[in-house]
Amino acid sequence: MSEPREPAPAPALSDVGSIRPLQIWRDVTARVLQSELITMAVVEIPADGLVPAHQHENEQVGLCLAGSLTFTVGQETGELGPGGMWRILAGVRHEVRAGAGGAVVVEVFSPVRDDWAGLEHAPETPPRWPGGS
Amino acid sequence: MSEPREPAPAPALSDVGSIRPLQIWRDVTARVLQSELITMAVVEIPADGLVPAHQHENEQVGLCLAGSLTFTVGQETGELGPGGMWRILAGVRHEVRAGAGGAVVVEVFSPVRDDWAGLEHAPETPPRWPGGS
Repeated sequence: MSEPREPAPAPALSDVGSIRPLQIWRDVTARVLQSELITMAVVEIPADGLVPAHQHENEQVGLCLAGSLTFTVGQETGELGPGGMWRILAGVRHEVRAGAGGAVVVEVFSPVRDDWAGLEHAPETPPRWPGGS
Repeated sequence: MSEPREPAPAPALSDVGSIRPLQIWRDVTARVLQSELITMAVVEIPADGLVPAHQHENEQVGLCLAGSLTFTVGQETGELGPGGMWRILAGVRHEVRAGAGGAVVVEVFSPVRDDWAGLEHAPETPPRWPGGS
């Protein structure tokens, strides 16, 4: 029996509501599931919140779950709502501003976001998405 | 000027509703966004639909967007609804059955699902999620 080793104490199955949020940028929080090759994060951006232009070597792919965003990736800018998707290759500069109602998105990175290891926890609040289960 | 090369003709920004679904398993469909390290797929499983136990070398992380699922990963089984998450390391056997209302999930794989390249398109229907935009 050689089960693949488990990289973290987290179980295989979890729920976004049971993950303590990290403060990833000012008032932007993320509930993070780490795996070996992938970091998945459910990210909440407040109304009109801005994540200013930045870049990293982690490829980033995402999906808007709720709210609205203005996303700029490289030379491309667009308005996205639920179902909107983005693909940001390694090293490509990107910026996002949430709309008047804020936004909740799921972001995925590979390789994993090791640079998030030292982040502080955010105050514990119920996740904005999914609402009213 | 050395922009990273674009792996596919798709733009950086897109929308799940503009992606033609692939038939990934019987009546299970996926709207797929390919990147270099990551495959993201918005997957629809019909009511009581089963994806039987299987395994692959691609790590898989996912999030339930709508509906309900019974997910088995290795020795762990759980019932998940919107906000439910899973992390499947390379080579770990997993199975999923949708509940009576079916399910829509977002699945992410790394390395990319090259084995999906030859799949047929499914009939074009509006995505089940997000509803009523």
